[in-house]
Amino acid sequence: MGKQTARELVLGIDYGTDSCRGVIIDAADGAEIAQAVGAYPRWAKGMYCDPQTNRFRQHPLDYVESLGSVMDSLLASAGAETLSAVRGIAIDTTGSTPCAVDAAGQPLSMSKEFAEDPDAMFVLWKDHTATAEAEEINTLARCWGGIDYTKYEGGVYSSEWFWAKIMRVFKSNSRVEAASASFVEHCDWMSALLTGAKDLRAMKRSRCAMGHKAMWHADFGGYPSADFLGRLHPSLPRIRESLGTETWTSDRSCGGLAAEWSTRLHLPAGIPVAVGAYDAHMGAVGGGVREGVLVKVMGTSTCDMIVAPKGKGGERLVRGICGQVDGSVMPSMLGYEAGQSAFGDVYAWFRNLLSWPLVSMKSIVPEGNLRSGEAAARQAQVDAILPLLEEEAAALEPGAGGLVALDWLNGRRTPDADQRLRGAIMGLTLGTTAPMLYRALLEATAYGARAIVERFREEGVAIDKVVGIGGVARKSALGMQIVADVLGMPIDIVASDQSVALGAAMFAAVAAGIWPSVDEAQKRMGPPVERTVEPDPRRAKEYDGLYARYRKLGDFVEKELT
Amino acid sequence: MGKQTARELVLGIDYGTDSCRGVIIDAADGAEIAQAVGAYPRWAKGMYCDPQTNRFRQHPLDYVESLGSVMDSLLASAGAETLSAVRGIAIDTTGSTPCAVDAAGQPLSMSKEFAEDPDAMFVLWKDHTATAEAEEINTLARCWGGIDYTKYEGGVYSSEWFWAKIMRVFKSNSRVEAASASFVEHCDWMSALLTGAKDLRAMKRSRCAMGHKAMWHADFGGYPSADFLGRLHPSLPRIRESLGTETWTSDRSCGGLAAEWSTRLHLPAGIPVAVGAYDAHMGAVGGGVREGVLVKVMGTSTCDMIVAPKGKGGERLVRGICGQVDGSVMPSMLGYEAGQSAFGDVYAWFRNLLSWPLVSMKSIVPEGNLRSGEAAARQAQVDAILPLLEEEAAALEPGAGGLVALDWLNGRRTPDADQRLRGAIMGLTLGTTAPMLYRALLEATAYGARAIVERFREEGVAIDKVVGIGGVARKSALGMQIVADVLGMPIDIVASDQSVALGAAMFAAVAAGIWPSVDEAQKRMGPPVERTVEPDPRRAKEYDGLYARYRKLGDFVEKELT
Repeated sequence: MGKQTARELVLGIDYGTDSCRGVIIDAADGAEIAQAVGAYPRWAKGMYCDPQTNRFRQHPLDYVESLGSVMDSLLASAGAETLSAVRGIAIDTTGSTPCAVDAAGQPLSMSKEFAEDPDAMFVLWKDHTATAEAEEINTLARCWGGIDYTKYEGGVYSSEWFWAKIMRVFKSNSRVEAASASFVEHCDWMSALLTGAKDLRAMKRSRCAMGHKAMWHADFGGYPSADFLGRLHPSLPRIRESLGTETWTSDRSCGGLAAEWSTRLHLPAGIPVAVGAYDAHMGAVGGGVREGVLVKVMGTSTCDMIVAPKGKGGERLVRGICGQVDGSVMPSMLGYEAGQSAFGDVYAWFRNLLSWPLVSMKSIVPEGNLRSGEAAARQAQVDAILPLLEEEAAALEPGAGGLVALDWLNGRRTPDADQRLRGAIMGLTLGTTAPMLYRALLEATAYGARAIVERFREEGVAIDKVVGIGGVARKSALGMQIVADVLGMPIDIVASDQSVALGAAMFAAVAAGIWPSVDEAQKRMGPPVERTVEPDPRRAKEYDGLYARYRKLGDFVEKELT
Repeated sequence: MGKQTARELVLGIDYGTDSCRGVIIDAADGAEIAQAVGAYPRWAKGMYCDPQTNRFRQHPLDYVESLGSVMDSLLASAGAETLSAVRGIAIDTTGSTPCAVDAAGQPLSMSKEFAEDPDAMFVLWKDHTATAEAEEINTLARCWGGIDYTKYEGGVYSSEWFWAKIMRVFKSNSRVEAASASFVEHCDWMSALLTGAKDLRAMKRSRCAMGHKAMWHADFGGYPSADFLGRLHPSLPRIRESLGTETWTSDRSCGGLAAEWSTRLHLPAGIPVAVGAYDAHMGAVGGGVREGVLVKVMGTSTCDMIVAPKGKGGERLVRGICGQVDGSVMPSMLGYEAGQSAFGDVYAWFRNLLSWPLVSMKSIVPEGNLRSGEAAARQAQVDAILPLLEEEAAALEPGAGGLVALDWLNGRRTPDADQRLRGAIMGLTLGTTAPMLYRALLEATAYGARAIVERFREEGVAIDKVVGIGGVARKSALGMQIVADVLGMPIDIVASDQSVALGAAMFAAVAAGIWPSVDEAQKRMGPPVERTVEPDPRRAKEYDGLYARYRKLGDFVEKELT
């Protein structure tokens, strides 16, 4: 902070799947000053969604109202003086979460005409209505004879991504197609909104979002050609045109906070609002990503982020990784995104399996036999399963009971995405117990982590250390020990549940000119490491052998599929 | 029965793992007149056993006392007149269950000196203390350069069998070694005992027991050579010598019921006692085994029995089957024994897995919260799991959820015995439910049944129909339907829980001269079919494809092991 003495605060705004979180951070040292969370009111009621068809839409007013309530809470808890010391804002969101907008960049569902039309709302990252469209994109990219535009996205375009979702909306809703001037990612809309931008053409599109999910690349001179997109849908070239050819990294400011939002959010007018980005990417920065350090955001699934210098020969393509984008994570580095389709979800699946008698057999312990409420007692039982499994599995050895499992219960994201793949367990005997199976599943997800690390290394990206952030990282001590043992590398567990918002705050500090670079902001504001999980050499050696068996099982399952 | 008018009854005595059962049958039509069960008193207390080391021994007095109590019960329930109409007795037992005996054929543990010595008692079929000895036998048989004496026993000698168990006893107990004049199978000892035989040399050894488990074969001129056995243990040639060279089928009489046993058992003196045999073999006869009809004794594991004519070229060797012995099932046919190492045990394993929270989390539903006894309530929950799974799995389609499982949770008995093999499940997703997994396990055991049927057919043994007997056959309607669908063959479910004792009664009727042959006894006394489970053609077709995947998974697991 040099010679400055006044407190300089920054605000990180993190839009997750269910809620918006605002965290005020001291730019000097990363100390958390205040935080607040606001749920999405319509989403909480299940509006505009249909889980049966995997349609998940979010209304823009959910984002606006939740942000308002977060800032009201921060005002109440931290006081006006604190808020007035905020010098910059950065926003991360889920993604790809695009929305049809008008010529002013306003979501169509903000107009009366489309207020209740799900196709005029944000298509949430996990909306899977566009699987057929993703398949069309992949087929065309491979067969049309021109550039394979999926090459920087691991070679497989996902139904969760920008162009597939636009195609799906257009095919199913001609009114939205006709009214749309463009599509905007949630992170880009938020920054544009808060800076009062009214011109779609001037909108600063996120390098992270567009690079990873919309096939933008400098080598292509921007987005895929009009020829390519036109073969997919006649309206796509028009959307392409609306996007321009530039994208921006999140150390840059989009503009100053507009007067109306200054009032509504209790923040100083004109403070810079950084270019937006995806949550996992800003989270990686908050978790301390740097060359050689892989940040694993571990929740129901994982996002694995790492950066590498571009090198003399230009950008080197890493096979079978979700995406690689220059500047998507750290502005001056190549950002690589990988991940596991299921991580905590695997353990939750096993807990649910073991809960089956508890939740299915309502008639077995008759209500009257329980003094307290039956539902509460059953829930307590279900909630107790994972901690007890963790305790008993911790007493077991690697590969206990001779089990080896495959973690692909939700397909495989990386390396080499294939959503058709499935999980497996081998080595079952009549003596196989629930804790043995639980340990095998923990090990399976650790093997999945290792497969990603090995792929990066094979492709010349160095990884010397892993940082764990996200819910599972702090909750499962055994899980983290197994990951460390399987990787044969130490894992730093970050002492914060807010690494993502902290990462956003770092970008805010750079956009506001408090720190000259994201590297510098990381150094100054980075969270302390809560603990370092060291690998045990003996177990690490055993896991080398077990990992080889995991790979063999995986090869079999992959081959069996075809 | 021709011109006879007086009622002619026969007695089948079935010694199982835990108890002795006696069933009085009308030889005219197989009608059950009376039955009684007597538990083994010492065994029930766990005496002489150590489950940790898989040591399971039974005291001969358990057999004697349980038989006495069975006959007392029959006297009480059926009356003296009924018992006086019994014309013959046949006895089946578990096996291989041998015991060290003195020169009079009396178990050493019947003497004061060895009364409490487990090595002087019967070594129960499931005693696995002799694994190292079985390995020695297999190694020698393959490498010594002479005859491979295991060739009629599927090529793999088991730790559960006669010679391995004798070696184990000799190695661990020199006093028993010195005192033993021979070893006698449980079934042979019972018949010798009841006929008052006092001369070991005159004992009629069972073709079934000696042929299947002691490597007796007519082609060898009896047992393996003294040279072969002497290389395994110096005392084995002496035991070999004591066995003679002949064996007898169970349509033959051992002699008449001795006076002392006539009194003790409330039966007419002098009535013929048939040569003994193993339970599964007599059970197959009771279940209606004949050419082309495979009888599956389905319990925790299965025994699969079929017969075939010897053919013109002499005995044809069937690859990878437990054993084939001329006359072991039906006196005039080759008897083949195959089986699955785990059947009902697989379902019990899954129930136990799902019960883990119930039995592990004593603290979760505190004792005080349950009005009735906690243990009873929990047991009721555990007991309800399989019926509920069965109900929900019945509503699913073949291969529901894309699952394919391998049934080798207790190794593989046949085809191609390999106890090192283990079970596996593939196709797991986050949507995989307990009923789906249960169905996959039922299907896996049915695939295991099909692998045996296919092997028999490949080797020229015809199978047109399956008869199911044993606990699981009558209990699991869904399981039987799946077996029928997977085999693409009808399955007759026999309307009796006493097929094994009934089979013994048939042999008693032949040994007593009431019927001229076992075939004839089967025709007259065979139990009615309770129901025939017909395969569904659509599902059968689907299972063809799923079975191919089972085989691929099995090939992988087998290869992965080596």
